[in-house]
Amino acid sequence: MSNWYSDKENKNCVTVSTRIRLARNLSDLAFPSQMTNEAREELKLRMKSAIKQNNSPLIKSLKYIDMADVPENEINAMVERHVISPEFARTNTGKAIILSDDESISIMVGEEDHIRIQVILAGLCLEKAYKTAQELDSILNEKLSFAFDPKLGYLTECPTNLGTGLRASVMMHLPLLESTGQLKQIGDSVGKIGFTVRGIYGEGSKAKSSLYQISNQITLGLSEENAIKNLSQIVEQIIEKERKAEGYIEKIVLEDKILRAKGVLENCRLLTSEEMMNLLSLINLGIRLGIINSEYETIKLLIEAGPYMLMKKYGTSTPEERDIKRAEYVREQFEAYRKA
Amino acid sequence: MSNWYSDKENKNCVTVSTRIRLARNLSDLAFPSQMTNEAREELKLRMKSAIKQNNSPLIKSLKYIDMADVPENEINAMVERHVISPEFARTNTGKAIILSDDESISIMVGEEDHIRIQVILAGLCLEKAYKTAQELDSILNEKLSFAFDPKLGYLTECPTNLGTGLRASVMMHLPLLESTGQLKQIGDSVGKIGFTVRGIYGEGSKAKSSLYQISNQITLGLSEENAIKNLSQIVEQIIEKERKAEGYIEKIVLEDKILRAKGVLENCRLLTSEEMMNLLSLINLGIRLGIINSEYETIKLLIEAGPYMLMKKYGTSTPEERDIKRAEYVREQFEAYRKA
Repeated sequence: MSNWYSDKENKNCVTVSTRIRLARNLSDLAFPSQMTNEAREELKLRMKSAIKQNNSPLIKSLKYIDMADVPENEINAMVERHVISPEFARTNTGKAIILSDDESISIMVGEEDHIRIQVILAGLCLEKAYKTAQELDSILNEKLSFAFDPKLGYLTECPTNLGTGLRASVMMHLPLLESTGQLKQIGDSVGKIGFTVRGIYGEGSKAKSSLYQISNQITLGLSEENAIKNLSQIVEQIIEKERKAEGYIEKIVLEDKILRAKGVLENCRLLTSEEMMNLLSLINLGIRLGIINSEYETIKLLIEAGPYMLMKKYGTSTPEERDIKRAEYVREQFEAYRKA
Repeated sequence: MSNWYSDKENKNCVTVSTRIRLARNLSDLAFPSQMTNEAREELKLRMKSAIKQNNSPLIKSLKYIDMADVPENEINAMVERHVISPEFARTNTGKAIILSDDESISIMVGEEDHIRIQVILAGLCLEKAYKTAQELDSILNEKLSFAFDPKLGYLTECPTNLGTGLRASVMMHLPLLESTGQLKQIGDSVGKIGFTVRGIYGEGSKAKSSLYQISNQITLGLSEENAIKNLSQIVEQIIEKERKAEGYIEKIVLEDKILRAKGVLENCRLLTSEEMMNLLSLINLGIRLGIINSEYETIKLLIEAGPYMLMKKYGTSTPEERDIKRAEYVREQFEAYRKA
């Protein structure tokens, strides 16, 4: 099984991935914050049967997993693979996940809203991802009645999602806008028109790996199509600015940093998660600049060498053992890329 | 022409090189601090003819060079190759150097004393180096009359050299005694018995590359043979302590540091002299520990990638250009070592 992040065709060094999320709630069940345990079980049962009863190829390809059956380490590894949210991972009772083989589709049941439909794809594919999410939404809506108000649109647990319930976001690698100090200004100006720029490891977190998520904030009074069109235009502008910043830094200084990062990743025997993120960020920049060949799968490595993903693979447990295994794993992958 | 530091047979990772120096003055010329320009010219003439008139194979192999004929950059490059002292390089009038092809023999004419006979060899070869210095001393003494007092021995410009005029020193690579903080104590105890430990870039300088010079301080009231025997024993003890310190540091931590240094040296595009010294020091430790193969010529690189040696090779001049050329040169050498 190959994961969404292994998609080589849509591989792109500035726009790493695209995510569409739709928030939905059932009209005849209490909203999540008010739910009893019985209601949670009822929600899971209804979702399970909605999936089982449908014969569309899209739904047939999904598998239903009760989160109570998933070991804790695998739950954390799912967070590292961006399959579930950190909030969803906090407890595993009354929750389920519906997943496609490549994990590009994940439907969280019992998150902040009853249902969170997520489609995540490599590269910049806003329309494609939205089309899939919309299809899932329609199919589920055949069996389930979603809470909807003619004036307010889809009703959600948190008012910030009211209306379309859509969050469209693009994960961007912006090392040069970051290092030249232009990101704050970009964040301020997109903020004024209803978009946010934030580090991928949660709001307010300092971005590791120079990865930033650009997403819409407004869900009310704006159609899904327009929200996506606007986001798409903003992303194009940021790509252009990031490309332009290539001219602000002396070429040999960049080459030196990038190739040293390669040298360290090819040779290290101990590697923390944080250092790996910083070094892989340089490798990703190197691919974009044509200094490193495009065989290097930075995002795959970033995800697969996460602490829980490593524990899943090697069963090791102490942080030092993981640093050894991480170095070993990264070296092996780099050796393979080098020979490719 | 291969230099003394390319001697692979005597290559040794803890005792890098051995140097013997004899200070001599002519009895019928004013001492250097009192010399007129005419006397300096007279001294050079006498040395030149002493060399020319002698038919021993040892002397026949030497060439006489008037320092006034040596360009400034080459003079500085000679300091980097340890052929002449930094003091000798300060001015070039009234000075000459007598050199062997591999530069293991250099006789400075017009240094602090009239004559400084130097023999420098790779590895630990105190007796061999002393034997050569002694032979040169005897041959020169046939033609020249050295200032000698039956009670005080050889008379020298500075009283610290009175007696034998001998300075015997061993350059040692002591990264583990340095990092475990044991060097100061060793310096204190050898100081009590007339020896010093100092960084190779001058007295009181912080050692770069963890290279230290161990040498005798006492030249009066002790025979040359005993001075050398004592130094030899001290060096053996320090080797043992440095080896013992291998057990104090976790193997994987050392491996990680050493192999990262290799990765950086194989890949960098900009390399300052100081960083190179630190990284080559780790490579030298790696050879000793069997982590890096013995083809890597750390001391050769350390010398040949010095600022003036690089200018001699590439003719470049700005520090940034040198950092680029240094990185290029080191990468090429590392590529060759890797394939060897």
